[in-house]
Amino acid sequence: MVIVYVVKIGGSLTNNAVNILENLKKSGEKVVIIPGGGNFANVVRNLHENEKINDISAHKLATMCTDVTGTYFSEISGIKTADNLFDAKRILQNESIVIILPSNIILSTDELPCSWEVTSDSFAAYIAKLLNSKTLIIATDVDGIYDKYPEGKLLNTINTKTIKGFTSVDKHLPKLISEYGIKCFVVNGNHPERINNIFKGVVDTYTKITLK
Amino acid sequence: MVIVYVVKIGGSLTNNAVNILENLKKSGEKVVIIPGGGNFANVVRNLHENEKINDISAHKLATMCTDVTGTYFSEISGIKTADNLFDAKRILQNESIVIILPSNIILSTDELPCSWEVTSDSFAAYIAKLLNSKTLIIATDVDGIYDKYPEGKLLNTINTKTIKGFTSVDKHLPKLISEYGIKCFVVNGNHPERINNIFKGVVDTYTKITLK
Repeated sequence: MVIVYVVKIGGSLTNNAVNILENLKKSGEKVVIIPGGGNFANVVRNLHENEKINDISAHKLATMCTDVTGTYFSEISGIKTADNLFDAKRILQNESIVIILPSNIILSTDELPCSWEVTSDSFAAYIAKLLNSKTLIIATDVDGIYDKYPEGKLLNTINTKTIKGFTSVDKHLPKLISEYGIKCFVVNGNHPERINNIFKGVVDTYTKITLK
Repeated sequence: MVIVYVVKIGGSLTNNAVNILENLKKSGEKVVIIPGGGNFANVVRNLHENEKINDISAHKLATMCTDVTGTYFSEISGIKTADNLFDAKRILQNESIVIILPSNIILSTDELPCSWEVTSDSFAAYIAKLLNSKTLIIATDVDGIYDKYPEGKLLNTINTKTIKGFTSVDKHLPKLISEYGIKCFVVNGNHPERINNIFKGVVDTYTKITLK
C-alpha cells in the first residue's frame, strides 16, 4: 500500500508557504496538506475574545478559515484542492500532493469537540485517521516541542502521556494521536529539508511524539 | 409580486451587526442580506499588498471571506443562510429574511471582474439583478456619500454618471446599477431606523444614487 503523509502547515508559515509547498511537491512522497487557519482564524479569535460569538460559532468560523488558507496555499502553488476524501484520493492517483479544504469534512461528521483546544492540528490528526495514515507531520514556525519556552530545551521525543509545557500543538492532539495510534512529528517548516528527513527516517531537528 | 430588498452589510459594521440584523428581521420586509468581507478580507488585502498573491487569487480569497462574515451574521442572529438563489427564494417563502453566502454564486457565474474595484457592493448589485430586485441598500459606517471627506457635505442624491469623491462604495458599483437599472441607497447601518425609512420612502439621512 502506498504510504500517505499528512502534513499540517500552520498559518504562522504563511510568508514561507510557497517554498514549503514546492519542496513537498518535489519530495516524491504522497502528501496530504492540511492548512491552519492563520490570520483569518485570528479574526475569529478576536470576535470570540470580545464575546461576540460563543465557542460553537467560533469553531464553525475558524473551520471555514482553514478553507481560505488552503485556497491561498493552492493559489500560490498550483496544487489541487479537495473538500472531501473521495476526491482527494482520486487526485492522489495522478498527483503526489493534494490540499484539503477541511471544513466540509470536519463539519460533516462533527466528531471533534467545539473548543479552542481543537485546532487544525486536531483536524489533521482526524483526517490522517480517516486516510489510514500513520504519520502526521505538523509544520510550524518553531523547531519542535520545548520543555519550556523561551530558553527551554528542545525535546527529541516526548510521550503523549507526559506532553506538557510549551507544546506548539493544540491540547486535544495528544488524545487523538494516542487513540488513533498515529506517530506525530513537530517540525520547523522554515527548514523544509527537515520535513524530507522525517520522510526518510533521518535524524534532524524536530520532535517526535511517541505513543508509548 | 413581493418586493425584495437587497441589503449589503459592510464588514465595518461587525460590532453592531446583531442590532442591524434584529431590526431588519422585525421590519416586516422581505430582505436578502449580502455580507461584506470585513476583517477577513483585510487579511487577503495584506497578502495582496505584500505581493504574495495576484489580483485573481485575491478576488477568490476575498469572495470566500464574505461567506465567513455571512456565517458570522447567521451565528449571531439565527437568520438562515443560502449559498444559492434557489434555496434563498425557498427560505423567503417562509421567512422574511435570508443571508446569502456569496462565493458560490459569484464564482459559479464568474461575470464580475477580478479586481479590488469589485467588492461585496458589486456582489450585492449583481445578486439584486439576479433576484429582479430594484432596490439595493448599502449599509456602511458613514452617513452616505460626501462630496469630500472628511469635512465634506453629505449628498442627498448623486447620479451614477457623476459619482466621484469619497463614495464609500466600490468603483465598479455605479456601472452595475446603471446597467441593471437598480436604485441604490448608501446609509449608516449604525442607525437602523434610517434603513426602515428607506423601506417606507421617508426622507432621512442617507444618499440615494440616481440613474438619470
